[in-house]
Amino acid sequence: MPVKLTAPEAASLLPVRGVELGYAQAHVRKPNRKDVLVIKLAEGTTVAGVFTLNRFCAAPVTVCKEHLAANKGIRAILVNTGCANAGTGEDGLSRAKQSCDALASKLSIQASQVLPFSTGVILEPLPVDKVIAGLPAAIDNLKADNWLNAAEAIMTTDIVAKGTSRQFQLDGKTVTITGISKGSGMIHPNMATMLGYVATDAAISQSALQAIIQYAVNKSFNCITVDGDTSTNDSLILMASGLAGNAVIDESSPDFTVIRDKLTEVAVELAQAIVRDGEGATKFMTVRVEAGKNEEECRKVAYAIAHSPLIKTAFFASDPNLGRILAAIGYAGIDDLDVNNMELYLGDVLVAEKGGRAASYVEEQGAAVMKESDILVRVVLNRGKADCTIWTCDFSYDYVKINADYRS
Amino acid sequence: MPVKLTAPEAASLLPVRGVELGYAQAHVRKPNRKDVLVIKLAEGTTVAGVFTLNRFCAAPVTVCKEHLAANKGIRAILVNTGCANAGTGEDGLSRAKQSCDALASKLSIQASQVLPFSTGVILEPLPVDKVIAGLPAAIDNLKADNWLNAAEAIMTTDIVAKGTSRQFQLDGKTVTITGISKGSGMIHPNMATMLGYVATDAAISQSALQAIIQYAVNKSFNCITVDGDTSTNDSLILMASGLAGNAVIDESSPDFTVIRDKLTEVAVELAQAIVRDGEGATKFMTVRVEAGKNEEECRKVAYAIAHSPLIKTAFFASDPNLGRILAAIGYAGIDDLDVNNMELYLGDVLVAEKGGRAASYVEEQGAAVMKESDILVRVVLNRGKADCTIWTCDFSYDYVKINADYRS
Repeated sequence: MPVKLTAPEAASLLPVRGVELGYAQAHVRKPNRKDVLVIKLAEGTTVAGVFTLNRFCAAPVTVCKEHLAANKGIRAILVNTGCANAGTGEDGLSRAKQSCDALASKLSIQASQVLPFSTGVILEPLPVDKVIAGLPAAIDNLKADNWLNAAEAIMTTDIVAKGTSRQFQLDGKTVTITGISKGSGMIHPNMATMLGYVATDAAISQSALQAIIQYAVNKSFNCITVDGDTSTNDSLILMASGLAGNAVIDESSPDFTVIRDKLTEVAVELAQAIVRDGEGATKFMTVRVEAGKNEEECRKVAYAIAHSPLIKTAFFASDPNLGRILAAIGYAGIDDLDVNNMELYLGDVLVAEKGGRAASYVEEQGAAVMKESDILVRVVLNRGKADCTIWTCDFSYDYVKINADYRS
Repeated sequence: MPVKLTAPEAASLLPVRGVELGYAQAHVRKPNRKDVLVIKLAEGTTVAGVFTLNRFCAAPVTVCKEHLAANKGIRAILVNTGCANAGTGEDGLSRAKQSCDALASKLSIQASQVLPFSTGVILEPLPVDKVIAGLPAAIDNLKADNWLNAAEAIMTTDIVAKGTSRQFQLDGKTVTITGISKGSGMIHPNMATMLGYVATDAAISQSALQAIIQYAVNKSFNCITVDGDTSTNDSLILMASGLAGNAVIDESSPDFTVIRDKLTEVAVELAQAIVRDGEGATKFMTVRVEAGKNEEECRKVAYAIAHSPLIKTAFFASDPNLGRILAAIGYAGIDDLDVNNMELYLGDVLVAEKGGRAASYVEEQGAAVMKESDILVRVVLNRGKADCTIWTCDFSYDYVKINADYRS
């Protein structure tokens, strides 16, 4: 079961003016599940994306980058689950483009105004005929209050649909933000993660939107890890239809930081939801590293902790076997780290200092914190002013089960 | 069960002239198990060691380095299991030294002629009184044919004892090499791994022995990983008693490469045995990366594959979900990798080329290789002449079970 995460109520995911969503059961890989999603965007919508840095990036990621660069104005998004269309070479690119052609033709737009996305098994050809056969049904049920269905249509090993909304006043207008995400395994984003779609009806210039997505992704999806595996298909898309009626926001607008921070808040919630729904997760862990010389070394320490199978299995067992955290700090790659001048806290409990166990520490304190489902691991390096926070989950029998069984 | 690994017969571990071994049941952590080992070395034995680069290196590792640097001639080795004496600060150093003092006094040698080692739980004080109380029994049963008992005395989560011997002619003399190792989890050596002890009666100069240990460790223990966690206590010790009667070997001797390669062969066998006995292992995987620009990038790719929980669980399931290997190659950190110009083989089967699945590949071929217990994953980067080989194992339910239960 996910860690303190339930699917949102359909009514809690607010429609965003200018954004309609439709889905189909196209039997891409398995029958009787929503596996094709179409999002239709009003003319004039600004769109920004960030994508995986994996060298084996999926064919649809390559096509997305081409279509965004073509700058014709994005009018539709097409997502399929069941097949990642990654590790598929030239043929994969051709199939991704075929799917864009088909949707463009049905919506009377250009193919370069469509962004395609795929998620699922790598190294298998995309059954593009099935995807295309699903388009009429998806187009038939396009509507503005379909966000929960859309969140469900992009799930793979996810247990619950993930989405959230915000509504607030800006420039005298009511502005709405709604976002959905999917992802549960192969989660260690590098620039972006898995699939995330965030829409707002605020009017935001293209350059401001690009600045916002970079800011937001660095505070959200780039701070999570489930298993340390960076996907071939990671993508986060930000869409702004402009139909709220506010004056267009650019980087110099007073409202820039307001909308940036609201969008970031949504991105953080969606990113954390992915970890709470991490494959086999029973614990949600916040790893905070403070007082480092620079952010890079803080991230090294945080990820060494967040990726250690030994630490993740100890958290699964609620066993305060905390020496494993010291070992991870020690091998994180800070060559001149003075282990005699740092502190380790579990929740509020001081566990280690001066190179060893704190004199005040008794195991019952650690055991009590380990029983919680949300746990803070805090490392104070005492060598500078930088910090960073990473969110991750534990490592359970079910992680092995899910990934040993995934294709069967 | 370990992957094609059984404990050696006691008689197959040959005595090495000048080396005696004795053990005790000292109840360091658990009753009724051998948990203290003493190795006594003849006067004039040359000794070399390599140790973990973990910044939280254990107290005994620090003491070992001091005692080797003191250059008084090492005469004894003392190992305890049940407690790693790591993350224990000044008090840990003091306890490690106390144990050396006690053994030195009983053997009428100096404390700086003793190398101490500990393995077990981190962040707990060493029960040094128990270790010292076990010394008389260990000294009482010191004998040359005690190698199997010694291998058993250093086990923690290991399932089988690990050791091997070689005997051959050198300089007209019969030379013997015997080595033992332990380790099963927290295995991702950096310079050395876990505990390994290799002894020979060949006469080898100190500088030649140091050159040999560096060569051997880079070909053996530095090429294995179980879970990517670099231990606080990794140590490999090479001992040469000189009692075989050969002329002392230095770097310019014609016999230098002979003894170096024999010692390396023993180190490789002991290192691979650790992987075959990896926590929960059901598969032994050789990851070979060829035709890279340099060894470093080959190692990056090999370790990305060898550390991926997604790949390791797929191997556990014997599921040829090989796209996960492409994903790992893609995120390994080679920024200019041309994914359209590399090949992936599973055993002899060409799986992927030209950025996608090979036209000749059918899943039945991959499935057949995946059923084996020893599997070769071969990546050909086609961008240079460097290569590297890493050995690892799969990731099973039992890995989680072992590490969730370890302290209980």
